[in-house]
Amino acid sequence: MGNTLESRNLTMLMDFYELTMANGYFQNGMKNKIAWFDMFFRQVPDNGGFAIMAGVRQLLDYLQNLSFTEKDLALLKKKGFGDEFLDYLRHFKFSCDIWAVPEGTPIFPGEPIVTVRGPVIQAQLIETMVLLTINHQSLIATKANRIKRAAGNRTVMEFGSRRAQGFDAAIYGARAAYIGGCDATACALDERDYGVPAVGTMAHSWVQLFDNELDAFLAYARQYPDNCILLVDTYNVLKSGIPNAIEAFNREVLPRGFRPKGIRIDSGDITYLSKKARKMLDDAGFPDCQICASNSLDEELIRDMLVQGAKVDSFGVGERLITAASAPVFGGVYKISAVEEDDGSMTPKIKISENVSKITNPCAKTVYRLFDKDTGKAIADVVTLHDETIDDTKPYELFDPVYTWKRKTVTNFVAKPLLVKMFESGKKIYDCPEIEDSRVYCRKQVEETLWDEIKRFENPHKYYVDLSQKLWEEKDKLLKAHAGK
Amino acid sequence: MGNTLESRNLTMLMDFYELTMANGYFQNGMKNKIAWFDMFFRQVPDNGGFAIMAGVRQLLDYLQNLSFTEKDLALLKKKGFGDEFLDYLRHFKFSCDIWAVPEGTPIFPGEPIVTVRGPVIQAQLIETMVLLTINHQSLIATKANRIKRAAGNRTVMEFGSRRAQGFDAAIYGARAAYIGGCDATACALDERDYGVPAVGTMAHSWVQLFDNELDAFLAYARQYPDNCILLVDTYNVLKSGIPNAIEAFNREVLPRGFRPKGIRIDSGDITYLSKKARKMLDDAGFPDCQICASNSLDEELIRDMLVQGAKVDSFGVGERLITAASAPVFGGVYKISAVEEDDGSMTPKIKISENVSKITNPCAKTVYRLFDKDTGKAIADVVTLHDETIDDTKPYELFDPVYTWKRKTVTNFVAKPLLVKMFESGKKIYDCPEIEDSRVYCRKQVEETLWDEIKRFENPHKYYVDLSQKLWEEKDKLLKAHAGK
Repeated sequence: MGNTLESRNLTMLMDFYELTMANGYFQNGMKNKIAWFDMFFRQVPDNGGFAIMAGVRQLLDYLQNLSFTEKDLALLKKKGFGDEFLDYLRHFKFSCDIWAVPEGTPIFPGEPIVTVRGPVIQAQLIETMVLLTINHQSLIATKANRIKRAAGNRTVMEFGSRRAQGFDAAIYGARAAYIGGCDATACALDERDYGVPAVGTMAHSWVQLFDNELDAFLAYARQYPDNCILLVDTYNVLKSGIPNAIEAFNREVLPRGFRPKGIRIDSGDITYLSKKARKMLDDAGFPDCQICASNSLDEELIRDMLVQGAKVDSFGVGERLITAASAPVFGGVYKISAVEEDDGSMTPKIKISENVSKITNPCAKTVYRLFDKDTGKAIADVVTLHDETIDDTKPYELFDPVYTWKRKTVTNFVAKPLLVKMFESGKKIYDCPEIEDSRVYCRKQVEETLWDEIKRFENPHKYYVDLSQKLWEEKDKLLKAHAGK
Repeated sequence: MGNTLESRNLTMLMDFYELTMANGYFQNGMKNKIAWFDMFFRQVPDNGGFAIMAGVRQLLDYLQNLSFTEKDLALLKKKGFGDEFLDYLRHFKFSCDIWAVPEGTPIFPGEPIVTVRGPVIQAQLIETMVLLTINHQSLIATKANRIKRAAGNRTVMEFGSRRAQGFDAAIYGARAAYIGGCDATACALDERDYGVPAVGTMAHSWVQLFDNELDAFLAYARQYPDNCILLVDTYNVLKSGIPNAIEAFNREVLPRGFRPKGIRIDSGDITYLSKKARKMLDDAGFPDCQICASNSLDEELIRDMLVQGAKVDSFGVGERLITAASAPVFGGVYKISAVEEDDGSMTPKIKISENVSKITNPCAKTVYRLFDKDTGKAIADVVTLHDETIDDTKPYELFDPVYTWKRKTVTNFVAKPLLVKMFESGKKIYDCPEIEDSRVYCRKQVEETLWDEIKRFENPHKYYVDLSQKLWEEKDKLLKAHAGK
């Protein structure tokens, strides 16, 4: 499958401070110092109970294409960097290890979703792109998942390209939306490059270009009798749009041996109009003709429409999905967690903050998700030291990392690692699943492993993300040492 | 200057319905029918009084690269399009005329900001990209302009790449922010490709990688004595960050003959901390050492900080700028306005809506901005028929297009056309200004031609965008004809 990132070198898409720091490490003899960094996020957008991981494929593509061109180096020379450092960049060879959570997985605040281990210069230089890639697609996959859940078993189509924040926001937004649960996109490029089904029929301009609405509908129905969906709100939905659509169906679709596919309403009180339209279509003998609604929709509006009995079979969702308008930022951060010393020992690193929620978890880490063996539901995620394992043949005691007297022992569970090693010493060792598989995996994970309490839109239950006893002790030690300073 | 769009073919970044319609026009013998389309927007984000036009250069780049590859055609064949139409696309040659408002110009709701005239298939196929390109960059330029105005004469740096909605959102967002008034970006790629100055110094990880904060600062100051800006909030701003910074300045900057450049505070109560920091730096003999603040800022927070006397010289603004978080959608639309008949006459097209604000202005049009000769201030914009001129040697009567009894005669003005012809018969005939010139032009337009009343954040005065008498009459005729049906 084609991939536009292959032909684009985004190496210089980095914060300039990554270069000043890299040069500093280089000049201070620290270039081969091995550091560990984690990407994690602190809050689910829209106060949701969970997010959906996405963007991993593009992150891996970017990492495989890391290299500085002579044009890049010319700029950096002009910016004042010395020849020795530039030469290092000229021969830059990525050699980090990378672990990440596979696309489509539900993820929670406070756990590493990407972990990078490698020479500090390298691990630092990729900071912006790790965050940018995962933040964007996870934002849209998470929003799409909410919208799809609001729509129930109805079809949801991503229609937002024109209002996306740039070309990639349209392209990768549609991709992420598909992983998160959307059924199709309007963006033709996404079918070509990512296998997301592209759909679409007509704009108002089609209707306006003909002498009248009926002529426009007849011409369209003649052209596409097998996929005839007519936009009925150019003039007046009930007085003109639907009656003309019915006439076009009867004259140009049925005689060709097809059934009319649907109508689309793009303005007005869609709940009201859809009920009237349904009745008119049913009475005309087209109970199978679907009603599609579009017009600045999101999960709240869709839920409201359905509560009020709207007769809508499919939703076209545009700007509010493609920009995640109600919460347009996925706040992933990238923080150093440990350094490997020359003697092979590890020095854990912690970021202290007045704001307790901003204190980071130190140490090279990994994450396990505990599933109840009987129900298959996720019980909790446990962040552990990197080389720790959880023995799921024995009872395991979970505890709240702040209110440590809140404890719970779980039994009858399986512990599955959440992070998958995707790069080893700079080489990709992971095959990204087909997008279709990530989408099915996402749906199953959400449907089968998450309790309904976590899936509520309002005040969802807070899923447990706990620390292992060992990790908690390491962190506690560092906090006490810092307080004692 | 390099331009990544040149190596990317974004032709397929279109809504699929543009292809179904194009094929329909093709099959119905309408492929050479000449149509006029306008892009305009209905509302300024954040309830502002005006927006800033941006993205024109990328739109022109895209239009110059329009072509379908065999891979595109293979997909479209699979989607069911016939060979004749595919052959048309294979030999697609763009031949439209395009007018657009130059980058950096203040723009207002209801006026054409891009006008396209050409074969209806072509004009239709570019709909998504016209909107996407201009919507995105105008959104960010508008937001940047607000933030820069809140900051007054202080420096504003765009720091948002990591939270942008995709790669292009980072790249072109930084470009648009610069046009709108930002002074620099963190994104290194933007300096290479678009000449936006890239800046940056250190992250918390730099500080954490050394044994202690002072060592980290000393190493940095030694490396960059001429541009020494230290991040002081890794441990504790007042107890450790500032005292260590002062020590590093004294030991490693002054002896090398430089003055310390600044400190950066990225967390905590920045208003409070900046005042304390200012005093400590002044007392240490560094009244010229600047204080930079970053941490989820926007125009509201900056204004509040300054009202409370924050001692901040420069602002690093991230996610809320690069996503325009408080209003992340620029709602530009693209509507057909007229069709040229075979006999050379024009048929105006109007889109009727129950929602009066959604009724479009018919006819091939252009726009004039009227400036008061004495003050240089913009009085009103007038949308006219395309071939109309405004004689500014004579008094001109403005009137409200809805409350037509509200009238005002202006004298002593100059009328300047707002739209510039940029493509003629598919060929680019416009040279985009250097970005620096667009930025200066933007600043001057906002400072010198807009009344303060329009620039208020709260309840700004609504700038007049009126219709000429002739255009108003054409519209009125169509509305009455429609109501009479």
